[in-house]
Amino acid sequence: MSPVLQLAVELIRRRSVTPEDAGCQALLAALLERAGFRIERLRYGEVDNLWATHGAGGPTLAFLGHTDVVPSGPEAAWRSPPFEPAIRDGRLYGRGAADMKGSVAAMVVALETFVAAHPGHPGRVGLLLTSDEEGPANLDGVRRVAEHFRATGERIDWCVVGEPSSREKLGDLIRVGRRGSLSGTLVVHGVQGHVAYPEKARNPIHAFAPALAELAAERWDRGNADFPPTSFQVSNLNAGTGATNVIPGELTALINFRYCTASTADGLRARTEAILARHGLEYALEWNLSGEPFLTPPGGRLRETVVAACRELCGAEPEQSTGGGTSDGRFIAPLGAEVVELGPVNATIHKVDECVAVDDLERLPGLYRAVCERLLGS
Amino acid sequence: MSPVLQLAVELIRRRSVTPEDAGCQALLAALLERAGFRIERLRYGEVDNLWATHGAGGPTLAFLGHTDVVPSGPEAAWRSPPFEPAIRDGRLYGRGAADMKGSVAAMVVALETFVAAHPGHPGRVGLLLTSDEEGPANLDGVRRVAEHFRATGERIDWCVVGEPSSREKLGDLIRVGRRGSLSGTLVVHGVQGHVAYPEKARNPIHAFAPALAELAAERWDRGNADFPPTSFQVSNLNAGTGATNVIPGELTALINFRYCTASTADGLRARTEAILARHGLEYALEWNLSGEPFLTPPGGRLRETVVAACRELCGAEPEQSTGGGTSDGRFIAPLGAEVVELGPVNATIHKVDECVAVDDLERLPGLYRAVCERLLGS
Repeated sequence: MSPVLQLAVELIRRRSVTPEDAGCQALLAALLERAGFRIERLRYGEVDNLWATHGAGGPTLAFLGHTDVVPSGPEAAWRSPPFEPAIRDGRLYGRGAADMKGSVAAMVVALETFVAAHPGHPGRVGLLLTSDEEGPANLDGVRRVAEHFRATGERIDWCVVGEPSSREKLGDLIRVGRRGSLSGTLVVHGVQGHVAYPEKARNPIHAFAPALAELAAERWDRGNADFPPTSFQVSNLNAGTGATNVIPGELTALINFRYCTASTADGLRARTEAILARHGLEYALEWNLSGEPFLTPPGGRLRETVVAACRELCGAEPEQSTGGGTSDGRFIAPLGAEVVELGPVNATIHKVDECVAVDDLERLPGLYRAVCERLLGS
Repeated sequence: MSPVLQLAVELIRRRSVTPEDAGCQALLAALLERAGFRIERLRYGEVDNLWATHGAGGPTLAFLGHTDVVPSGPEAAWRSPPFEPAIRDGRLYGRGAADMKGSVAAMVVALETFVAAHPGHPGRVGLLLTSDEEGPANLDGVRRVAEHFRATGERIDWCVVGEPSSREKLGDLIRVGRRGSLSGTLVVHGVQGHVAYPEKARNPIHAFAPALAELAAERWDRGNADFPPTSFQVSNLNAGTGATNVIPGELTALINFRYCTASTADGLRARTEAILARHGLEYALEWNLSGEPFLTPPGGRLRETVVAACRELCGAEPEQSTGGGTSDGRFIAPLGAEVVELGPVNATIHKVDECVAVDDLERLPGLYRAVCERLLGS
């Protein structure tokens, strides 16, 4: 077994369902310490974070990953147990194989071999790991680490996130930014009553209907060269007591914007509330900004380097996308870092029988190493 | 204690929470049998129904009532226990005092005294009771009895329903008809997905929004001389998995029409489906017609008789209304009967500390008796 495959297998065996780390970081820290890295453990609440660096001064290239995985769902639905890594038909199966224990193993192998070849490299290389990427809140993961970095003046110039970015072939797509995510909990107030006496009640479903239609039809922006247009979705809508003869007293809607740099969170908030106000609604709306958009612009040193590495080692120009969900890159970008995401094919992530092609996994350390070489190998 | 007060007290003591009769009908049947009535017990499923008649041939005047009551809710919330009748400040308290054990007691006393005074009266007088008026389904109550009557050729010409119709003073409002009730369960189909990838999903909330706005704004009719306009209400609306990052795959709405004779159930169904179709929705819609509207037109013999009795015995012209919810009258009207509803003040029905004014209760047998006298007392 190659070192990266062996390490990925070791990681998958550890049942690190978010926010558990289950010993993954201790294993990786031991390897990196042996390779000469300085290790800093940052435990916040129940979350393990690890910051390992090699070198001093000059620009810093940091790899970013997570050791936690999403739950496996019913284990019986898997062809082989999710936490017992298995190789079949050239694929490594197990929860986290693609998201993202394979990438983490590849980053560690790339860093080990890079510093062995360039013990006196300029600048710093580092690896930042968290065990709280897949959970709902992400309060004590990279969000908290970034606060700590800001407070202590820790500087990151380039950040490669190991999220599984590839669509069909390794390196066919990289992420050069992400949309922001703005959520809201909307409660529309009405007056409860009996359906036979609508004149004594005020139905919040009826009151909200035209505003909802307007919100759903609104074109928030047209996107821009870097981003698809901002999208608005109502994910949950609930009103009613269950009884069929009662007009409900209130309605609750959970709303979410995935927004691009053509809009701002403040602007979207204001436009939403203007629509609600125009329809004369009585409502309460609580907003939660879970991540602002970030973009590593074309021409940036990291972006060009990752593109060139993909072109050279994967044989094709990668698509440079800002689509998809959020990632922990959103916490690192505001520190002033260029952020690019590059990882294996994401077709099976969060599903049963998650897997990564062994061949892809074994090429991944070379890709990450190439980024190190091009930026700090001179 | 007057006979009607005593009988009402006896009935309230019986804990006949729908669809239980708890011995009410046996007590009443014994009284009526002693007064010379022919008793027919009609038990369907778990529901007791009673049909008591006196006389033969000619027109039939039937009183209609129910012995079941709605649940009391937490008994501790009552000033005195709901099933221990108590008289305070001129009011009789207890679950069912107003809805409608008081009316039932008054009907029985009215019938006893009427047949005692007119043992050879023309036509028939009768009392129809059920223990399944307050429940959700009403399958085995008056609905089933009416089927039985239709099958056996039982004829009812005039029907006085004892529902508590009065608003502030006994006899200030009678019901001369009721709107129909048409319900529907609508499921709008979409395609579930991740909020970050709306292009791969189809949000049924967004798809339904403009149709919902149109349904809520629609003027179904303008009502007519006898009825207020048809009203449409969405009582329950639910979509979403609970997760905030998932676009739901379907939406469920419970809808209800309270409709007047200016519309038909078929017409409302067709117009609803036309609106849904115009918005290109994929949906399933299951309809349930729980009652068609009925009207006892002005000039009808029963309606004029009840109005005259109220005018004479209560001292004012009663409002003749078709408002409010449904009643069991909807099952009797289609048999060809004129139906009018007259009962005590409804301010406390279905609430804690339900009560009826003792004075009103003691005047109610006289009102019912007056109707008997005017129609069959010659």
